[in-house]
Amino acid sequence: MGDEGRRRGPWTTVERERLYRNPWGALERHAVIRPDGSTGEHLFVDLPPAVGVLAVDGRDVLLVRQPRYGIGREVLEIVKGGRHDGEAPDAAARRELREEAGIDAKRLLPLGERVALPSITNERATLYAATGLKEIDVEPDHAEAIEVVRMPLDQALDQALEGGIEDADTVVALTRYAFAIGILRIE
Amino acid sequence: MGDEGRRRGPWTTVERERLYRNPWGALERHAVIRPDGSTGEHLFVDLPPAVGVLAVDGRDVLLVRQPRYGIGREVLEIVKGGRHDGEAPDAAARRELREEAGIDAKRLLPLGERVALPSITNERATLYAATGLKEIDVEPDHAEAIEVVRMPLDQALDQALEGGIEDADTVVALTRYAFAIGILRIE
Repeated sequence: MGDEGRRRGPWTTVERERLYRNPWGALERHAVIRPDGSTGEHLFVDLPPAVGVLAVDGRDVLLVRQPRYGIGREVLEIVKGGRHDGEAPDAAARRELREEAGIDAKRLLPLGERVALPSITNERATLYAATGLKEIDVEPDHAEAIEVVRMPLDQALDQALEGGIEDADTVVALTRYAFAIGILRIE
Repeated sequence: MGDEGRRRGPWTTVERERLYRNPWGALERHAVIRPDGSTGEHLFVDLPPAVGVLAVDGRDVLLVRQPRYGIGREVLEIVKGGRHDGEAPDAAARRELREEAGIDAKRLLPLGERVALPSITNERATLYAATGLKEIDVEPDHAEAIEVVRMPLDQALDQALEGGIEDADTVVALTRYAFAIGILRIE
């Protein structure tokens, strides 16, 4: 409980009940006064701000394939993760890249922000492309198996735009990066 | 509770506790056996499959701007919503377009599937572009104010790729549609 009577955009949160918490986030029930003055309830998923990193090695990109619990199957996607307390987004991007893909990056190119499922969560992500890659020896910190998948950028881009790559963050990062370097053009 | 001992990808869900439910979804705590055999817990957001619809009127697109509770501010995005029980995705797309934007569409062009936050939710969305639009008189079913925003497709596309449009589904739908009709090209 806590944060009673807090403004949240045009809503007022009159009660906030934390139902469950683990190291990755928390599930909450919020009682609210809606913008039109009526009362209601919202489910709310409290997540830290995240980062997503598209690793670029010359004409190739390195994606990760891993099983994802929510959707219940493997997803091919950019490296992603939540920021630690007080951690800057670029530092989080470098850490996630090391932890998930065993890669150090010389340069990070900012690709802007994205929101996803904005009605149910405060999670937002800062996206980057990482270049100047170097493989490092790391102990993976994950119980899940993460497979690093190398593919040509134009092939990944084609899959993102045709629907073969389904992860929204990955489509956003690939298209924004390709647009930034001039491979994707608006006619 | 229920679904004990169910397989979920490489995990086994040994306990499933429903903590909260409202008409839009449910919050759950899952006790799991991980792929490596260790035990753990996952937060899980149970949401119906969704649809997202990019409304296209000639050289313009129609987006909606509305406050979103989770992120706590306004988001400019395509029309979106959860499918009703037994509702086909194209029927849901047409319904959401009527309810949120007051628009009937003659044609729907499929733009593939997308997942978002796949570690925490089973939500997935089927995306469409809608053309052959006709304004209709509807009673909006939402307590929130939804503003319909018309802008040139190439301007929306530019904002999606530069980061001015932050909503991931909207970036995916805009870029896939523009690619499908040849306005966006891989060089």
